[in-house]
Amino acid sequence: MKILAIESSAKAASVAVCEDGELLGQYFQNSGLTHSVTLMCMARDLLANIGLAARCVDVFAVAAGPGSFTGVRIGVSTAKGLAWGAGKPLCAVSTLEAMAWEASDGAVACPVMDARRGQVYNALFAREGGAPARLCDDRAISASGLADDVSARLRGAHVLLFGDAAGACLPIFSESGIAAGLAGDAVRLPCAHGVALAATRAAPRAPGEVLPNYIRAPQAEQKLTGGGR
Amino acid sequence: MKILAIESSAKAASVAVCEDGELLGQYFQNSGLTHSVTLMCMARDLLANIGLAARCVDVFAVAAGPGSFTGVRIGVSTAKGLAWGAGKPLCAVSTLEAMAWEASDGAVACPVMDARRGQVYNALFAREGGAPARLCDDRAISASGLADDVSARLRGAHVLLFGDAAGACLPIFSESGIAAGLAGDAVRLPCAHGVALAATRAAPRAPGEVLPNYIRAPQAEQKLTGGGR
Repeated sequence: MKILAIESSAKAASVAVCEDGELLGQYFQNSGLTHSVTLMCMARDLLANIGLAARCVDVFAVAAGPGSFTGVRIGVSTAKGLAWGAGKPLCAVSTLEAMAWEASDGAVACPVMDARRGQVYNALFAREGGAPARLCDDRAISASGLADDVSARLRGAHVLLFGDAAGACLPIFSESGIAAGLAGDAVRLPCAHGVALAATRAAPRAPGEVLPNYIRAPQAEQKLTGGGR
Repeated sequence: MKILAIESSAKAASVAVCEDGELLGQYFQNSGLTHSVTLMCMARDLLANIGLAARCVDVFAVAAGPGSFTGVRIGVSTAKGLAWGAGKPLCAVSTLEAMAWEASDGAVACPVMDARRGQVYNALFAREGGAPARLCDDRAISASGLADDVSARLRGAHVLLFGDAAGACLPIFSESGIAAGLAGDAVRLPCAHGVALAATRAAPRAPGEVLPNYIRAPQAEQKLTGGGR
């Protein structure tokens, strides 16, 4: 089964094609150029370079959040357009779970993405038997609140930090006495390869049914309704 | 400093651009299509996608072997052409050392690439302080000979296997009582990101001075001279 996966939840963006769990190709970029300019070109060029037509992809997949509202919106829109055009289903996966697929067995994967306003987007995963097992729902939480939760929940575990807030969280974890380390350079940021792996366990849906998962309401909506979460 | 790195030592091929150690973009493919068709397109498309002109690259870098004779030849030729055209220097790095740059600190990196005729290309690296320290020269060796050498040289070390022969070597290492594991999916095969990291410690040269490093003479040359190594 051929999966084309898209990831654009933060500053970086990537597209990957996997066949039966094997990576046929991945195109990653982190130049700071807007995803609306770069993402579709990467998908088109990658398909051409590996000699695959979009109609020969079996399932499309996308990191549907949490992450940057604009980034998630562009990724989900691009994936919906590609899947709808090719007449194929679309899997929406958690940006956080996708990162946990890159962890080694035995580690607790702790992805942390900058959520601004003093918070990170996070979930926890125990990596065993070649796949991550989810320990809590995706959430927005302060770094110190997360360190407290990890200390209480996972005494003595080896915690591997992923995501664009990993470097900022590491000293806070260390001060709390947690045995934590940074995931390797090549897998620390979210990437489409992890999205493709996560999609192998997700339910494919009609493209029109897939929605972004922001966790928090966008700031504009919060201002409109006069509330915050 | 911007580095454009090329890796095509075996079935997969990739191009990466790093700036001061940070990955700006990487294009990886493992479809089985020939590198002479895919590699230059990947370099051109990646530069365009991240908005960088070839003349703005400071140094080019290439995995100069050991590996598939044809793959290494195409990679070195492509890199020499790009560097010469842009009027910039070229770093040649070991395919094996480039993989060791993806290991985590504390591990012994043991890259193994299929060298056919019952051998693997290998070298050993102790990963400490964010960089690999070389423990032996690049060589062609049988998997069982390598297991004997690792047992004698590195008693009790945690050995991380990289390369396209990693899966075949793992049971041989385990039978020899070596604490070995496979590097993660995302970094197991050689990639241009590792080449760019290795190039930060390599001496840039005039493109015309760079030659492939085959370790063994190509089979055609061996037949011509009537000998084997």
